[in-house]
Amino acid sequence: MNDTTTTAATAAIEADPRVPIIHITRDFAATPAQLFRAHTDPELFARWVGPDGMTTTLDRWDARTGGSWRYVAARDDLEFGFHGCFHEVRPDRIVQTFTWEGEPDAVALETLTFEDLGDGRTRLHAQSLCDSFEGRDAFLHSGMEVGVDQGYAKLDTLLAAGQIAGTAAGAEA
Amino acid sequence: MNDTTTTAATAAIEADPRVPIIHITRDFAATPAQLFRAHTDPELFARWVGPDGMTTTLDRWDARTGGSWRYVAARDDLEFGFHGCFHEVRPDRIVQTFTWEGEPDAVALETLTFEDLGDGRTRLHAQSLCDSFEGRDAFLHSGMEVGVDQGYAKLDTLLAAGQIAGTAAGAEA
Repeated sequence: MNDTTTTAATAAIEADPRVPIIHITRDFAATPAQLFRAHTDPELFARWVGPDGMTTTLDRWDARTGGSWRYVAARDDLEFGFHGCFHEVRPDRIVQTFTWEGEPDAVALETLTFEDLGDGRTRLHAQSLCDSFEGRDAFLHSGMEVGVDQGYAKLDTLLAAGQIAGTAAGAEA
Repeated sequence: MNDTTTTAATAAIEADPRVPIIHITRDFAATPAQLFRAHTDPELFARWVGPDGMTTTLDRWDARTGGSWRYVAARDDLEFGFHGCFHEVRPDRIVQTFTWEGEPDAVALETLTFEDLGDGRTRLHAQSLCDSFEGRDAFLHSGMEVGVDQGYAKLDTLLAAGQIAGTAAGAEA
């Protein structure tokens, strides 16, 4: 393993000024194929998603176009359920819906794209579209950046440990 | 059948000024249960959706939370494919994604709610959320109102002819 500080980035999380969208941008020492696998393989996904100290259990996971998903994140006596459906799953793009079951009528439409930067690096673009600025801003102020940053740091660790197979030309793992 | 002019309404189609949403509002001589059935039963849905003169063939239809759908609308040599997934299907609310396959990366998040007005009448609220004002306005200017109005008129006819079963207390059919 090389210097891990090169992957200890924080995600850029931005509120779009025109539309109720959250934009997240994060670079990884990974190929697009590895990031795709990290977001679709149920065992891998459960190992990195969410903040430190939470255990994620996948209740339903069918990561293909027209499939659906549900998982529960737990710590001590706390449980948080999330669910949605996969509108499209293809190697460079995943479009899915997202609901936190604590607010069951709030639905976000999420679009992930994997931009190949070359040399085994990929930029993840994640867009969450809400139906109001109030809902978008409540999500932004919920502390979601902690889960985003800690989750992606776990994903960095899995990548650096060679736990995510892929056509990793140029990757250091 | 009673005077059909009472149901020959046109839908109110409005562009939201703040967010890239299209709001459609339309009253029907139907109960919420009948409107729910009209939007989830595959044989009924194919009989009314879309403009006059198009034939709708359902390719995939699993109208339940986490299910998915695809249909093809055809006239002469023209074919238009549409697909999406059902985020949530419950008696008063359907949330689903929507893509016209001619523009495969454009995805709308649609929310339908059925507001019981009493006396066997129900107000349909349909909201389509896009990720840009440009995309929303292109959809609005695509001639979609013709399909919306002609489709709902066909649904009126099915309701008036007693083709859609329901707990239709107060309905005239």
